[in-house]
Amino acid sequence: MARVSDLPESLQVTRPTLLLDRNRAIRNIADMARKAETTGVRFRPHFKTHQSAEIGRWFAERGVECIAVSSLEMARYFARAGWTDITVAFPVNLLEMDTVNALAGDIDLGVLVDSEAAVTALGGVLASPVRVWIKVDTGYGRVGIPWDRPDRITSLAMAIQRTSNLSLQGVLTHSGHSYQAKSRDRICAIHDRAIMRLIAIKKLFETERIYSCEISLGDTPGCSLGNDFRGVDEIRPGNFVFYDVMQYTLGTCREDQIAVAVACPVVGKYEDRREIAIYGGGVHLSTECVIDKEGRKTFGYLTSLENGGLGPLIRSAPVRSLSQEHGIIQVDERLLDEIRIGDVVFILPVHSCLTSSLYKEYRTLDGEVISRL
Amino acid sequence: MARVSDLPESLQVTRPTLLLDRNRAIRNIADMARKAETTGVRFRPHFKTHQSAEIGRWFAERGVECIAVSSLEMARYFARAGWTDITVAFPVNLLEMDTVNALAGDIDLGVLVDSEAAVTALGGVLASPVRVWIKVDTGYGRVGIPWDRPDRITSLAMAIQRTSNLSLQGVLTHSGHSYQAKSRDRICAIHDRAIMRLIAIKKLFETERIYSCEISLGDTPGCSLGNDFRGVDEIRPGNFVFYDVMQYTLGTCREDQIAVAVACPVVGKYEDRREIAIYGGGVHLSTECVIDKEGRKTFGYLTSLENGGLGPLIRSAPVRSLSQEHGIIQVDERLLDEIRIGDVVFILPVHSCLTSSLYKEYRTLDGEVISRL
Repeated sequence: MARVSDLPESLQVTRPTLLLDRNRAIRNIADMARKAETTGVRFRPHFKTHQSAEIGRWFAERGVECIAVSSLEMARYFARAGWTDITVAFPVNLLEMDTVNALAGDIDLGVLVDSEAAVTALGGVLASPVRVWIKVDTGYGRVGIPWDRPDRITSLAMAIQRTSNLSLQGVLTHSGHSYQAKSRDRICAIHDRAIMRLIAIKKLFETERIYSCEISLGDTPGCSLGNDFRGVDEIRPGNFVFYDVMQYTLGTCREDQIAVAVACPVVGKYEDRREIAIYGGGVHLSTECVIDKEGRKTFGYLTSLENGGLGPLIRSAPVRSLSQEHGIIQVDERLLDEIRIGDVVFILPVHSCLTSSLYKEYRTLDGEVISRL
Repeated sequence: MARVSDLPESLQVTRPTLLLDRNRAIRNIADMARKAETTGVRFRPHFKTHQSAEIGRWFAERGVECIAVSSLEMARYFARAGWTDITVAFPVNLLEMDTVNALAGDIDLGVLVDSEAAVTALGGVLASPVRVWIKVDTGYGRVGIPWDRPDRITSLAMAIQRTSNLSLQGVLTHSGHSYQAKSRDRICAIHDRAIMRLIAIKKLFETERIYSCEISLGDTPGCSLGNDFRGVDEIRPGNFVFYDVMQYTLGTCREDQIAVAVACPVVGKYEDRREIAIYGGGVHLSTECVIDKEGRKTFGYLTSLENGGLGPLIRSAPVRSLSQEHGIIQVDERLLDEIRIGDVVFILPVHSCLTSSLYKEYRTLDGEVISRL
C-alpha cells in the first residue's frame, strides 16, 4: 500500500495496472533453465503465461531455443518474433489448418493429436512436414489418450508413421492434476508416475519397432518440485516465470518468486468490518481462487513494494471477494489505520496466467511498458 | 453443435468467438423498458454488461436517455458515443479526478460516494458541478454505508450539500446479494427490503430538511422479478440485456432470453468418459460457475442454432471444467455420437458480463461484427 505521491512517477497509476518484477522473472527463468541443464532435459518453456515477445527474449538470452504455446495465434506471434521451433501444446484445431500450413512452411512446428480423426485430417491437408506428439492422459482426465490404453496409443503412432508430412516425435503429457494435490510429496508422486507411465509406452513402442519416441512433460508444480527426470527428453513448464498465490499455496514456489502483481486504487474503507474496497475486480484479477486454511475463498493477497521489488505476501490481507470491477480486501487494525482512500495497493494474483491474460501490457517496477499478444 | 460446412458463411468461425442473438437482446431491452414505464421509474440501464456503442443505440431507439457505467473509462467511451447523462455507479476513484473534471464539463455526470474522504477530495478539485449519489449498503456487504447507520448517511448528505459543485441526487444501492438467493421469493424479499430501507433514509432526510433525495436501485434479479417499485425513482439493471446461465439458474430469466453464446471448435472426443474437449477455456468463457442440482460445478451449457437464433439450453451437456484454453463438456450418448472433432459447438455462458469482457467484439447471428470498448 502506498500514498500515490510516495511512489516513483512511473508507478503513479490511476487504474488497475499489471506490474512485473523483472528481476524475479529473470531469476525464475534462470532457476528453471539450470534445473533443465543439471537434469539433462531439453527446456521448452510454455509461453502461454507471459505471451510477450520481450519476455521471450529473456529466455533466449538464457539459451532457450524452443518453446511451447497453447494456440496457433500464439505460435504465429512468436514465429514473427523470431522463434523457429514451436510446439502448439494443444490438441490440433482442424479449423485452423491454413495457419498450421503457413507456420509449417516457415518454422519447425510441433502439434498434438489424440485421435485418428485428427491424424487423418492433417494427412489430407498438410503441405509441409510437422512434428507430431501423441497427447497421453497420465491421470489428469482432460485431453489425451488414457495411459492405460496402450493399444490405442500404439495404433495412433502407427497411423502417424503411415501419414505423409507427419513425423512422430513422441508422447507428451500435462499432469494438470498436480494442481489439486494436497502436498509436495503428492505432487512429486504424480510427477514420478507420469514419467513411469510414459516410459512404459516408449518401451512398448520399441517392441512394435517404433523407435522415434521422445518423452515431453509439462506442469510447473512437477517441474519445480520433481528431482528425478530420468527418461524424460523435454520439460514444458510455463507458469514458473511468474508463479502466483496458487503455486505458493501448493508449496511449489517461495513468496519471493511471485513476479507479478496488480496495482489497484483504494476506493472505500469499512472500519466496522475491517475491509477496504479496491478498483480491481474479476476483470482485473480473474475470478480464480484458492481456499485458505480456514476454508475461505481467497482471490489474492496484498503485498508491498520494497527496495524496487515486490515485497512479501501479507497473510493478514487476503482478497475476500470480487465482482466485475470491485474487490474487497480484509485487513488488520494496523493496515486499516494505514490505508487511505486514494492510495494504491498491490495484489499478488491467484493465477498469474489468467490475470496476465486480462491485460495488453506489463509495467515493470522501473516503469518500462512491455507489450503482450 | 454443427458441421462447420452447414453453418452460414459468416458463422464459419475457426476460433472461440462471442456470438450475439440480436433479436433476443432487443427484446430484453424492450421488456425491461416496458417494465420501467409501467412501474413509473426512470430507466437508467447499466452498460457495463455490453460496453458497446452500437448496442447502446438499441437502447436509445427504445427511448432510453440516461445510463450507468462502472468506470470512468466507460463513461468517456459512452460520452463520445453521444450519451449526455451518465452515472458512474462505482465509488468515485480519487486518482482519476482529471477524467471526472473533463467529463463533468461535457455531460451531466453522476458519481457515487460513501465516505467524507471522497466528498472532501471532490470538493477540493472539481471545476464543474456533478450529481452525487450516496451509496448505501442495504445488505450486500460490498461497498456503501450500511443502511442501519442512518446517522452517517445523513451526515454525509449534509457534507455533500455544504460542498461546492456537488449536488446531492439521492441514495443508491445495488442488492448484489440477490445473486446468492436460493429462490425467486427470496430475491423479491431482498428487493422489497432494499426499497424499504432506502425509503426510511429518505424520510429521515426530510426530518433533517434534506429534500433532494431520489432512490436508485440496481441488480437484474430484483428488477426482473420485483413488481413493486413504489418509492423508487430509477432502476439500473445491466445484465438483463444478455442474461446468462446464472440468471437462468436463479429463475430470473427464461432460457430463450439468453442472448450471447461462445462458438468453440471441438478438438477432442473421449468416448469412455462421455466428454468432448473444446478450444474454449477460462480466457474465452471466464471461470465463473454455477452449482448444478447434483452439486457439481458447471461453467456453461451447450446450445444450438435454430431458425437464425440461439436454441434451448441443453441440460444434458454441461461444461464440466475449464483450464486456460481447454473446456470439457459432458455429453449424452446421442450428442457423443453426433459431435465430431472439427465441429463447432455453442456455449451459453454462466456470467455474460465477464464472458463478454474477454472479447473485443460481438458477432451477430447474421454475421455483423459489433465492436465494444
